[in-house]
Amino acid sequence: MPEDRDSRPVRLLAISGSLRRASINTAVLEAMAVLAPGDVQIALYRDLVELPAFNPDDDEDGGAPPAPVRVLRDLVAASDGIIIAAPEYAHGVAGALKNALDWLVASDALPGKPVALINTAPRAFHAQAALRETLATMAARLVPEAFATLPSIGAPMDRGSILADERSALLLREALAAFRAAIAAG
Amino acid sequence: MPEDRDSRPVRLLAISGSLRRASINTAVLEAMAVLAPGDVQIALYRDLVELPAFNPDDDEDGGAPPAPVRVLRDLVAASDGIIIAAPEYAHGVAGALKNALDWLVASDALPGKPVALINTAPRAFHAQAALRETLATMAARLVPEAFATLPSIGAPMDRGSILADERSALLLREALAAFRAAIAAG
Repeated sequence: MPEDRDSRPVRLLAISGSLRRASINTAVLEAMAVLAPGDVQIALYRDLVELPAFNPDDDEDGGAPPAPVRVLRDLVAASDGIIIAAPEYAHGVAGALKNALDWLVASDALPGKPVALINTAPRAFHAQAALRETLATMAARLVPEAFATLPSIGAPMDRGSILADERSALLLREALAAFRAAIAAG
Repeated sequence: MPEDRDSRPVRLLAISGSLRRASINTAVLEAMAVLAPGDVQIALYRDLVELPAFNPDDDEDGGAPPAPVRVLRDLVAASDGIIIAAPEYAHGVAGALKNALDWLVASDALPGKPVALINTAPRAFHAQAALRETLATMAARLVPEAFATLPSIGAPMDRGSILADERSALLLREALAAFRAAIAAG
């Protein structure tokens, strides 16, 4: 149904791996929501904190997944693509973010789903590499041409300063355009 | 105070990375508690599920860490060493376990603490490698001679079948002896 696809906006789910109030990762996703072209809608997922620790007994082993998990799965399933901006903690993926991915393993929401990764810490690479490995293992469709590493623009990096920085804004616009094109190409 | 050290038991904190009721990782730690020599006490940490998602605002950024986090830090600080048995989910560390480590980053409980890793899935290596990287980054004292990879003994692998398997029991006893020796050597 190409007509249908062309007529409705591309809906992206943005997940920040940080719960910090002044998180740079959250800020860059908020900035992307502002920068997105009219036919791209970005909704920020803000309920990482609601997800309980993953327990297979409440999932593939027959139990019913908790309500916040069902909500996350529905949001992922209903999206055309996922943008993840994640901090690196102790050379690893933030546990809270990996916990959300653990809950998605047994669902059919992620396989084939386009995913873009935004890195806000240019010198960090362990978490990004681990996320790529995990997402590829989960059969997500990584879209490297939509990946972006935000240049360091000096503190404080918040939504306003990211939007005001021409290089950052251009980089994020280009990532979004590449992501939209990859999603349209299917 | 070598006299003091020699007269009291070695206290180990065992952390299973899985919340599954019939977890092999929990079972192997329970088996180690049974196999431990008289002067080694192993306490199983069972409150991974109580830890909220790590938020720096409630930690190094000035807030007070939640009560379950303070309990975990106290248990780690009071132990002579940590044994971690962790599953691998989607080629990565279980999010709930990494979340616990994230809460320990800003505390002084882990640096210098001897840590042994038990692998119950011989074919898995991503999670173990990521854990080593993270624990080394956190300045824990990895004790590789006390690491053990449990041989596959056929389902069901529970505490009873692990204890009944001579090869497994020997391997775990040797790991404990090596860990005790490394801790005594300081």
